[in-house]
Amino acid sequence: MFDTVAIVGATGAVGQIIIELLEERNFEAKKFRFLASARSAGKTISFKGEEIVVEELTKDAFAGTDLVIASTPDDIAAEYLPSAIEAGAKVIDESGYWRMNDDVALVIPEINPQDALNAQGIISSPNCSTTQMVVAMKPLHDISPIRRVIVSTYQATSGAGVQGDEDLVQGSKARLENRDYEYKVFQHPIAFNAIPQIGSEKYEGYTSEEMKMVYETRKILGDDSIQINPTCVRIPVWNCHSESITVETESPISPDQAREAFAAFPGIQVLDNLSESVYPMPSNCDGSNDVFVGRIRKDISHPNGLSFWCVSDNLRKGAATNAVQIAELLAEQ
Amino acid sequence: MFDTVAIVGATGAVGQIIIELLEERNFEAKKFRFLASARSAGKTISFKGEEIVVEELTKDAFAGTDLVIASTPDDIAAEYLPSAIEAGAKVIDESGYWRMNDDVALVIPEINPQDALNAQGIISSPNCSTTQMVVAMKPLHDISPIRRVIVSTYQATSGAGVQGDEDLVQGSKARLENRDYEYKVFQHPIAFNAIPQIGSEKYEGYTSEEMKMVYETRKILGDDSIQINPTCVRIPVWNCHSESITVETESPISPDQAREAFAAFPGIQVLDNLSESVYPMPSNCDGSNDVFVGRIRKDISHPNGLSFWCVSDNLRKGAATNAVQIAELLAEQ
Repeated sequence: MFDTVAIVGATGAVGQIIIELLEERNFEAKKFRFLASARSAGKTISFKGEEIVVEELTKDAFAGTDLVIASTPDDIAAEYLPSAIEAGAKVIDESGYWRMNDDVALVIPEINPQDALNAQGIISSPNCSTTQMVVAMKPLHDISPIRRVIVSTYQATSGAGVQGDEDLVQGSKARLENRDYEYKVFQHPIAFNAIPQIGSEKYEGYTSEEMKMVYETRKILGDDSIQINPTCVRIPVWNCHSESITVETESPISPDQAREAFAAFPGIQVLDNLSESVYPMPSNCDGSNDVFVGRIRKDISHPNGLSFWCVSDNLRKGAATNAVQIAELLAEQ
Repeated sequence: MFDTVAIVGATGAVGQIIIELLEERNFEAKKFRFLASARSAGKTISFKGEEIVVEELTKDAFAGTDLVIASTPDDIAAEYLPSAIEAGAKVIDESGYWRMNDDVALVIPEINPQDALNAQGIISSPNCSTTQMVVAMKPLHDISPIRRVIVSTYQATSGAGVQGDEDLVQGSKARLENRDYEYKVFQHPIAFNAIPQIGSEKYEGYTSEEMKMVYETRKILGDDSIQINPTCVRIPVWNCHSESITVETESPISPDQAREAFAAFPGIQVLDNLSESVYPMPSNCDGSNDVFVGRIRKDISHPNGLSFWCVSDNLRKGAATNAVQIAELLAEQ
């Protein structure tokens, strides 16, 4: 058990869910501290029957804290989290900043818990689009190593933060009423549209979001030989990312084998009955901590291919839930 | 030039665009007739400065007509179009009913015009999701034969007809106002959701829409050895289908070669500058008769792979435009 736990970015979309999960899952500590930018400092947050005052995040704020769970933009994580490590805290970070650093563990507890337990420095939680895919890949990879992945995503606006959701609400209303709306977060209208770019150009025509799916997957599975080709697309959905995934394995895996392995894996739920129109969608996965798979079928274009559809709440297993699960793992140690 | 041209399904979403295109492109005939169900008979449609009265579609309606362009549900096409052939008319059909029949030509004018010119019976226009993909495949296939395609679609509600659009409008309004709405066409809410099923279960876990992309592509390109793995998904967009496409060719095709070949192909427009956020989207392709490609890049998971993003107006090149182009081809003969 930890003595003092600090949530950094406590007032953000993911921070709020982290706090909700800590209460709901009865995560124990002597003291909980909520940190945020100066703008939010002084607000109060209800937690386990108490009103806790939000403190300003500073480099000196971590004295006496032994666990930090941080969900902030990259630049904040870069600036402040080394101070938390120096102050002797275990640090779980949701941001993208530290993930690919050699000294940083990148952890999904169902997959590589040992990397969290052995970590000397920051423990990063992967990008939302990566996490759900890698959770779904793992039980297949254990049957026969995955050699190649082709994935197209259908990503929700909540991945772009609270303002992303607001853009979708206001943009949709405006479009339905034939009014103009100036988008704050998205470069193009997201209402009733599909935008095939998330992040900036990163490598050979791929975006930063796409390359996260490549690099992070290899690091988590500890296998740099897996070939991955992602296309990341934003669609007008508030929450839950969907992914159309095709994998090629060393030996063929049948849909029945895959279905059984998915169902047996912790944190995966199978919703798969096409003739009854049963499959995961944002509308039936929102608010769950699990990763959902359906449309499980043989890839009819390749003897060793398997295709499926994967949906997960990007703010939960894609962010808050994974971080809290890492915290639980460390607390049991 | 044809003497008498009949548009069957003249009052439908695609029928209306066919009529608009015939006027806009100055398609010539001595007489134009508009046919529809008894429900629509008697209405008038403005065409080239005249008001033309819609006639009821019957099996005897085709006497004296030498070209029929039909856009109807499958059962109507099955019942009535053989009478048009018997009456001696050339018949261009938008429905799915006749496409895979051995005696029926399946035609995209930029690709296999000769099949239309040689046709003895019905000439079918392919399914919307197939047409834009095959147009984009063709210039690559001409450089080096395509051996495999993996495609995930992002399909608009207009593909489900006028009521599909209405479901999206009413469902979106209801959701924004926190009201319930009972969907008429979609089995699940389409507003702010993604539904990984179009059509019914057809073959080994694939839907009818997905298998159309497999069978029709092979027939149009005249190559049954092409392996195709489609995932068809409905998203909350009114019009224009988007497709994330990865192809494997016999020899590698570089992104520059592909870009040049796409740009030189009739009916394809290249919008491809990721660093400036330029790529095709429903919002910038709606209302155009062309097929748009962007995000052209090397498939980093395969030495002979190429990936790109393809958007087209499904009611136009995916339906009305292709049919009118076939008609123009026949008229020139």
